[in-house]
Amino acid sequence: MFEAIDTPFLAGGRNSLAALSSETEPPKNSPGKSACKKHLQSSIDELRELQRKLYASDRRAVLLVFQAMDAAGKDSTIRAVMTGINPAGCQVYSFKQPSSEELDHDFLWRTVKCLPERGRIGIFNRSYYEEVLVVKVHPEILQAQRLPSTAEADELWEQRYQSIRDHELHLARNGTVIIKFWLNVSRDEQRRRFLKRLREPEKNWKFAEADVRERRLWDKYIEAYKQAVDATSRPWAPWYVIPADDKPYMRMVVADTIVKSLTSLGLVYPSVDEKRAQRFGEIKALLESEG
Amino acid sequence: MFEAIDTPFLAGGRNSLAALSSETEPPKNSPGKSACKKHLQSSIDELRELQRKLYASDRRAVLLVFQAMDAAGKDSTIRAVMTGINPAGCQVYSFKQPSSEELDHDFLWRTVKCLPERGRIGIFNRSYYEEVLVVKVHPEILQAQRLPSTAEADELWEQRYQSIRDHELHLARNGTVIIKFWLNVSRDEQRRRFLKRLREPEKNWKFAEADVRERRLWDKYIEAYKQAVDATSRPWAPWYVIPADDKPYMRMVVADTIVKSLTSLGLVYPSVDEKRAQRFGEIKALLESEG
Repeated sequence: MFEAIDTPFLAGGRNSLAALSSETEPPKNSPGKSACKKHLQSSIDELRELQRKLYASDRRAVLLVFQAMDAAGKDSTIRAVMTGINPAGCQVYSFKQPSSEELDHDFLWRTVKCLPERGRIGIFNRSYYEEVLVVKVHPEILQAQRLPSTAEADELWEQRYQSIRDHELHLARNGTVIIKFWLNVSRDEQRRRFLKRLREPEKNWKFAEADVRERRLWDKYIEAYKQAVDATSRPWAPWYVIPADDKPYMRMVVADTIVKSLTSLGLVYPSVDEKRAQRFGEIKALLESEG
Repeated sequence: MFEAIDTPFLAGGRNSLAALSSETEPPKNSPGKSACKKHLQSSIDELRELQRKLYASDRRAVLLVFQAMDAAGKDSTIRAVMTGINPAGCQVYSFKQPSSEELDHDFLWRTVKCLPERGRIGIFNRSYYEEVLVVKVHPEILQAQRLPSTAEADELWEQRYQSIRDHELHLARNGTVIIKFWLNVSRDEQRRRFLKRLREPEKNWKFAEADVRERRLWDKYIEAYKQAVDATSRPWAPWYVIPADDKPYMRMVVADTIVKSLTSLGLVYPSVDEKRAQRFGEIKALLESEG
């Protein structure tokens, strides 16, 4: 089964989650912007090759989960890190507010349908984790879910964490490599980014008024993130908490974490067994005689 | 409704399909390999920007259909042309042999589920056209489809063409831009490529013995392609027949056709209306006062 690589951003290992969750800026010894960009580019090149081996070997799927406060850079990180990968081997799903059909199912259902198949990299831009993040911060959303249980609130969240852990363990056992990123932006940097969206006409369309309202609930969100990460970061489905105030640094760390994780799998192009090699020889002779 | 751009490879316009289908090599006046690669790179850059506008404007979807004989270069063309596009705005589906669940539905069903949503580029690597290509060449496949009709064979294919035309017209009316490519490789070039796959160990895994068997039916396939293209190339869902024996040339032409088609849509970033602009001003003031 896949085992998380250890980095300074891994939650659930030797790093304290309290410390991780309070770091939104790059560490002091971090390389400059242009070094970050260079490192990102070389990671993308490695990732392109890793994806081809993943596809050819057809044994494992990869699921990358991105969660973050608005404007932390989920979309742009996915774009920056994954543009350059063959899109045939990569699928991105953005989960917005659930439809009424989706609400008529258990909370994992709509994402299960979108899981990556063997040989592919699946990317969840938001995910079933919304069910223990935004739903936890807005308990009124739970009402719409018409759950049968009269469980106390605390118990309900514990049950959801458990469902998620069981689900991820099941996927990991069956060959899915799960890597989860919390892009951790500061409240102040979010404000600067919202203002940028409002000031630059070509960024206006990205702006949603509702996003601003959620700022008031910042502390509740951070608390929900910490609890969710703590309850669900496991060696086979790790969370990485990435400082997100500096985009080039964040992107570099995300790409580097993915590359190192996939490298640890030791992916190789499949080889042909003796019997098949012999048959290939016969076909080769046949095709050659055609010419 | 979308209208096909006119190129020397468009089927159904002033070009004769007989002539188009017999051309598998670049025309005499084609630029050299390195010029083709350069042109491809600049098309990719344009396509990246067009995709962002397509996504932002959220009015249209794009469906690219690729059909070809084995080893014509469908996979590598999709990779070469679409790598560099944000994978969040691009989804590739490869249609293999249908499952028994899929066979229990009409022949369009399994692909309908995979159609691109507004704002995205969907790519079909093979498609519902297999139903009038491989199925036509192998009538025994029809048996497994348990159709109710006792229609004569000719009538059945005409009905399928009609279903496809109606389906594509419906999609076009509702905002999907459909562009279809027949990558037209010669029988001899296919032979060279199969031999390459057999000779180079790292390409072995791509080789399937069944592909070689289909070579015997080459002329039947080409006839089926011509009939399908003739019956379904329409201004709102054009077929382009691209000479495929030279990969850099083929990729350049495919990319160029896509770029010119999307450019013809006049995509722009959405603007904000007066009322919304005013509200944005209020929010901006609020956020600024926070700092």
